[in-house]
Amino acid sequence: MSDQDATPNPSPAPPAPTGPPPKVTSRGRTAVPVASSNSDTTDIPEFEFFGVAGPRGIPPLTEFLDIFDVDMMRKPDESNKMHHHTMLYNSDHLIVRRGQEFQIKITFNRPYDSAQDKFAVEFVIGSSPQYSKGTYIPVFPTKERQSSWEGRITDKSDNVVTMGITPAANCIVGKYQMYIAVVTPFGIRRTKRDNSRNLYILFNPWVAEDAVFLDDEQEREECVMTEMGIIYHGAHDDVSERNWNYGQFNYGVLDACLYIMDRSEMPITNRGDPIKVTRKASAMLNSHDEDGVLVGNWSGDYTYGVAPTSWTGSTDILLSYASAKMPVCYAQCWVYAAVFNTFLRCLGIPSRVVTNYFSAHDNNGNLKTDIILDENGRIDRDRTKDSVWNYHCWNECYMTRPDLPTGFGGWQVVDATPQETSDGMYRCGPASVQAIKHGQICFPFDAAFVFAEVNSDVVFYSRRKEGTMEPVKVNRTHIGRMILTKAVGGMTRRDITDQYKFSEGSTEERTVLEKAEEYGCKREKSDPPLADVDVVLPTLEISVGDDFELSLEFINRSDQQRTIEAYISGSVVYYTGVTSSDFLFRTPTVKIDPNKTVKELVAVQSKNYMNHLVEQANLHFIVTGKVKETGQIVTVMKVITLHNPKLIVEVSSEGKVNEEMIVSVQFTNPFTFSLEGVYIRMEGPGIMLPKYKYYGMITGGSSLTWTEVFIPQRTGSTRLIATLDCPALRQVYGQASVTIKP
Amino acid sequence: MSDQDATPNPSPAPPAPTGPPPKVTSRGRTAVPVASSNSDTTDIPEFEFFGVAGPRGIPPLTEFLDIFDVDMMRKPDESNKMHHHTMLYNSDHLIVRRGQEFQIKITFNRPYDSAQDKFAVEFVIGSSPQYSKGTYIPVFPTKERQSSWEGRITDKSDNVVTMGITPAANCIVGKYQMYIAVVTPFGIRRTKRDNSRNLYILFNPWVAEDAVFLDDEQEREECVMTEMGIIYHGAHDDVSERNWNYGQFNYGVLDACLYIMDRSEMPITNRGDPIKVTRKASAMLNSHDEDGVLVGNWSGDYTYGVAPTSWTGSTDILLSYASAKMPVCYAQCWVYAAVFNTFLRCLGIPSRVVTNYFSAHDNNGNLKTDIILDENGRIDRDRTKDSVWNYHCWNECYMTRPDLPTGFGGWQVVDATPQETSDGMYRCGPASVQAIKHGQICFPFDAAFVFAEVNSDVVFYSRRKEGTMEPVKVNRTHIGRMILTKAVGGMTRRDITDQYKFSEGSTEERTVLEKAEEYGCKREKSDPPLADVDVVLPTLEISVGDDFELSLEFINRSDQQRTIEAYISGSVVYYTGVTSSDFLFRTPTVKIDPNKTVKELVAVQSKNYMNHLVEQANLHFIVTGKVKETGQIVTVMKVITLHNPKLIVEVSSEGKVNEEMIVSVQFTNPFTFSLEGVYIRMEGPGIMLPKYKYYGMITGGSSLTWTEVFIPQRTGSTRLIATLDCPALRQVYGQASVTIKP
Repeated sequence: MSDQDATPNPSPAPPAPTGPPPKVTSRGRTAVPVASSNSDTTDIPEFEFFGVAGPRGIPPLTEFLDIFDVDMMRKPDESNKMHHHTMLYNSDHLIVRRGQEFQIKITFNRPYDSAQDKFAVEFVIGSSPQYSKGTYIPVFPTKERQSSWEGRITDKSDNVVTMGITPAANCIVGKYQMYIAVVTPFGIRRTKRDNSRNLYILFNPWVAEDAVFLDDEQEREECVMTEMGIIYHGAHDDVSERNWNYGQFNYGVLDACLYIMDRSEMPITNRGDPIKVTRKASAMLNSHDEDGVLVGNWSGDYTYGVAPTSWTGSTDILLSYASAKMPVCYAQCWVYAAVFNTFLRCLGIPSRVVTNYFSAHDNNGNLKTDIILDENGRIDRDRTKDSVWNYHCWNECYMTRPDLPTGFGGWQVVDATPQETSDGMYRCGPASVQAIKHGQICFPFDAAFVFAEVNSDVVFYSRRKEGTMEPVKVNRTHIGRMILTKAVGGMTRRDITDQYKFSEGSTEERTVLEKAEEYGCKREKSDPPLADVDVVLPTLEISVGDDFELSLEFINRSDQQRTIEAYISGSVVYYTGVTSSDFLFRTPTVKIDPNKTVKELVAVQSKNYMNHLVEQANLHFIVTGKVKETGQIVTVMKVITLHNPKLIVEVSSEGKVNEEMIVSVQFTNPFTFSLEGVYIRMEGPGIMLPKYKYYGMITGGSSLTWTEVFIPQRTGSTRLIATLDCPALRQVYGQASVTIKP
Repeated sequence: MSDQDATPNPSPAPPAPTGPPPKVTSRGRTAVPVASSNSDTTDIPEFEFFGVAGPRGIPPLTEFLDIFDVDMMRKPDESNKMHHHTMLYNSDHLIVRRGQEFQIKITFNRPYDSAQDKFAVEFVIGSSPQYSKGTYIPVFPTKERQSSWEGRITDKSDNVVTMGITPAANCIVGKYQMYIAVVTPFGIRRTKRDNSRNLYILFNPWVAEDAVFLDDEQEREECVMTEMGIIYHGAHDDVSERNWNYGQFNYGVLDACLYIMDRSEMPITNRGDPIKVTRKASAMLNSHDEDGVLVGNWSGDYTYGVAPTSWTGSTDILLSYASAKMPVCYAQCWVYAAVFNTFLRCLGIPSRVVTNYFSAHDNNGNLKTDIILDENGRIDRDRTKDSVWNYHCWNECYMTRPDLPTGFGGWQVVDATPQETSDGMYRCGPASVQAIKHGQICFPFDAAFVFAEVNSDVVFYSRRKEGTMEPVKVNRTHIGRMILTKAVGGMTRRDITDQYKFSEGSTEERTVLEKAEEYGCKREKSDPPLADVDVVLPTLEISVGDDFELSLEFINRSDQQRTIEAYISGSVVYYTGVTSSDFLFRTPTVKIDPNKTVKELVAVQSKNYMNHLVEQANLHFIVTGKVKETGQIVTVMKVITLHNPKLIVEVSSEGKVNEEMIVSVQFTNPFTFSLEGVYIRMEGPGIMLPKYKYYGMITGGSSLTWTEVFIPQRTGSTRLIATLDCPALRQVYGQASVTIKP
């Protein structure tokens, strides 16, 4: 017996690890690996003998009913795609929606005799099909054999049988293989695998049994069938638009969406549940954790990818991800939301992109946003570390919530933008909009976090020398100032703030905030007295490069003279509210007579801000100050979004399907300096796939015109969308409306 | 102007990625990086001038009050550690609990005069301390300066001031730096950074204001202060014990627990919230996603690490993880639960390990466990892909749940074992035990999942030839058969099944199941008629290597003769219920007279199963069959856990603190074959750190004795725990109780 003494304490154990730990198999843990890819498949056998030979042995099974042909009736103009609202998908395969009957035609070797012949149409998805998991579904033409999917013979003539098949309204969404099995007394005989008989089954907002049922045809048209999107940005009092081509019907997009779920290793069996699908997708749309679709970048340096402001639609992004199998560079919030929207509409889940102006962000769902002033009322930038996003975009998707008490179905917030500080939570939602509105933030998923995004307090603290802080002003209405989405059926905007919040100052609002506090949403308790002096900053529409004047109004509401020692600072900020650089600082002392108003003019020269601008060209003005007579603090903040020059997009003439048309994009560099490394991108739902053109330099004052030919694929109203992007100038947009006739 | 034509569709965009996408900074996204490491620190400046020079300029600040010395009163026998229940931590630093006063002594250059002198004790945690985030806390000795932490002077003599400090009961848990700042008219002067003044602040189950308050001294003693653990395994009718040294007070363990949170990049500001801490830790204890502490392995091959059955405690694992900064190999469920328990108790969150017998696992929280029989009632192993874990261990931790409606505080389930199929969820909980019991599974986190672990159905299907299945038996009571934890204060077990479930068949139980169904927990609806024949398998206690007889009782409850065509199969299974290999198969036909019972004896020979055994030596017997006369199906299942040989652990004599003692471990190889590559491990709470010894070979029938000297560190009842492990024989345990006197 060998006997070898071991080293003693403190940490004798395990063998020194070299390299990463060995990959662990599922042996001993699970009987079969979990099927988590829709592209993995298993062929099911062509023959299954029952092992009960007759007196003469087993006869060739072809003696019985035999299949000559199967017609999936998958052409866009055939009834399946028309009835299932899938005619717009650019795909050769049959695409149908669950809970609704579709037809296939089966040609036998002889007329089918229901009294004697037995056959089943079998559907299979994933690598380990199981009847009890809903991944292997046999459908019989007769009522007596039950299955969760229904089958019936709708027509018979000669050797041809037309069979109507209704997938269960909660079946798995994805790509199925189809077989036809003939049952004989001696065994089962199947058709060979034939990929042209693969079919896609999608969510179905048109049937009441589906969890995503949406009982409004116009909403369905908008939130499932519409490729043309408008996403709002800018400021709540100066709203700007981005046009976006969701492109959910473009060739390859549906496969890319299924690939996203495969890449996430989401079990196949979960893919019929819109709660699980949307939650998983909110994680997979960003590249954190699982090499998801989009890499976030807010730095202004987009050297190794496409600037977030430059994209015109989702198609490029999704096709690139599915082909290169690598995260795509780069995204900011609206890119995440737009691509997520494509994913949702493509799979059949009603969805829309919403924009929340002044969105509390990167916090824990119970923190206040703090602005620190020094004892003189001047902002202390070193200690002010929070920011409020000028706007933030997320998605809403429509579904029932059987996992929650009654009343919380309907629109649900999902958000694919990675939230930096939210406890490692790189996914968000689905959170019921109803639950958010009513302060019922105890329900999954992440309702408390979204509640804070629209309901936080902005607290101004005055910091004493020895380090303590005192709240001097609490702004309870700044955050979640307005929430917008595109109107149904139009090109206008719709204010849906009232779906998230009761009107300010109402009894309901107070109740909701109290309810939310019960669930741990901490709000600022102190209520510092309001100053009797107000400062008002004007709303301005300014173009990039303009010199302009800021006219501050100081209003004295008291019966005494007031003297304000004011600090006016102007800075360039990212749309995340993070300060890039300061370009203006004034410290006027303003004397105001009782009940009077004094205007203070501040001249802003473009030469001071132009060199500092970051991509979305936001100027942030903060005025703070102390009333000499009372010691009260006054504060006001304003974001001014500078307007960029525009692209002029012009289309030649009235359009017809399949006839050539011409579009021109024109741009004039309005600056005295040259623009270098310029990309112009263009696409249009149903009329043009993404195209781009590169210009090495556009000298100051010069113009360019880019002309392209395109051939519309379908009728209707649509748009051509163009963007121009270069490091010195981002977010230059243009579009043209086009109506295509048959 | 350069003008270069671009390639057209379909995917012109982004530049081909080479390698992983560039690492994105927080520039533009956040003003400062989120502090997410407790080991990152920032020195705060020694001098902060107010910039208000007097007429003679700024005098040296040392002219004012000056600090000569600070005494943290950190010895184990000083009042701080005694009052804060932290005297057992093997650490030189002060360790206190939040919401409770501790004392420090400050020696000044002259007597402190509260009328004239101003100073603050400052606490700082993480890399970007901020007052409003609770990461920078100044504490003043006078009431007038408010802070969330309280300070007061409790004693004064000569130049020495004793100050009592009460951290907020919701403050961040972790390691703080301490400074003392003297405020002068010209600026602030601070003590230099001195790491011996660092202190740890923990959760505090002893104060009512803390979210983890537990109002029962005996429970606190057990669930926070006890290092000695017993974890149950085996079968519900033949319970076995594992002893475990949680070792939460051992040197380095507290730092290792903080390192786990640092490694997870959990924001410092979240670390005061037990909900967030436990949720994050449930993810970090396993190595999925984030290179957490333990690598799971259920395969039986543990070549590159330590077999899960071989560990004797958590100390080795945690110290190895914190020093090598690599996941430790290997764990199964009880190892995850045991190390998680150490983490929780070490940080001061009351916790216990529980064992659930017959745990539904690796499913989605709404799936049934299916067993498929063929038309003759014989089990179809190829199609039976689900397994029920013989047992599963998780943790409960105690806390309020302000994020949920009233009534769901108290014990919460957290589970660190990675759940393979649960939608990529490699964390679980905290889920309220009360919510689980009442079917209120709509509340976070993962209550529905845990509900299914204790409440699923086992459904036996009969599969028809053409592929359809029919449920023939539903067992609604198999899953969650019994839930055990160690009793408070003793070495016995406590059945806590009634905390998870109402008694079987009660009205409350039915209501709960209906409630859970409302929230999407799908149960089997069909109710196949019960057969009038029962089969009963006996409870047996068998040792490894024994031949034995299985006595099956077939009971005919009808007034007619019954004939059973039975299938009896015996297989070796992992504790996960996954079949490793079959070793027995019989197909008797049993005839039973009306209202009679027939016994069928099945001889099981050790030679048939010994070569197939996997580590936990579980034999699984399934008897199925068809009643010839009625076509009814009968089924019964039984797990028999073979008993292993034991280690004999003997301690020399009565023990005293700091006096040498001797322990011997004896083992006799009961088999005829040799055991190779044998590790014996031993440790004991408060008396011995982990030790191990290696034996190359123990020949059949031979014995060994390992003798060690140890020196007890503290008084009380404890145990020495030993394990023996080799590839051919695992899970050999022994222990000895020891009482140490002062």
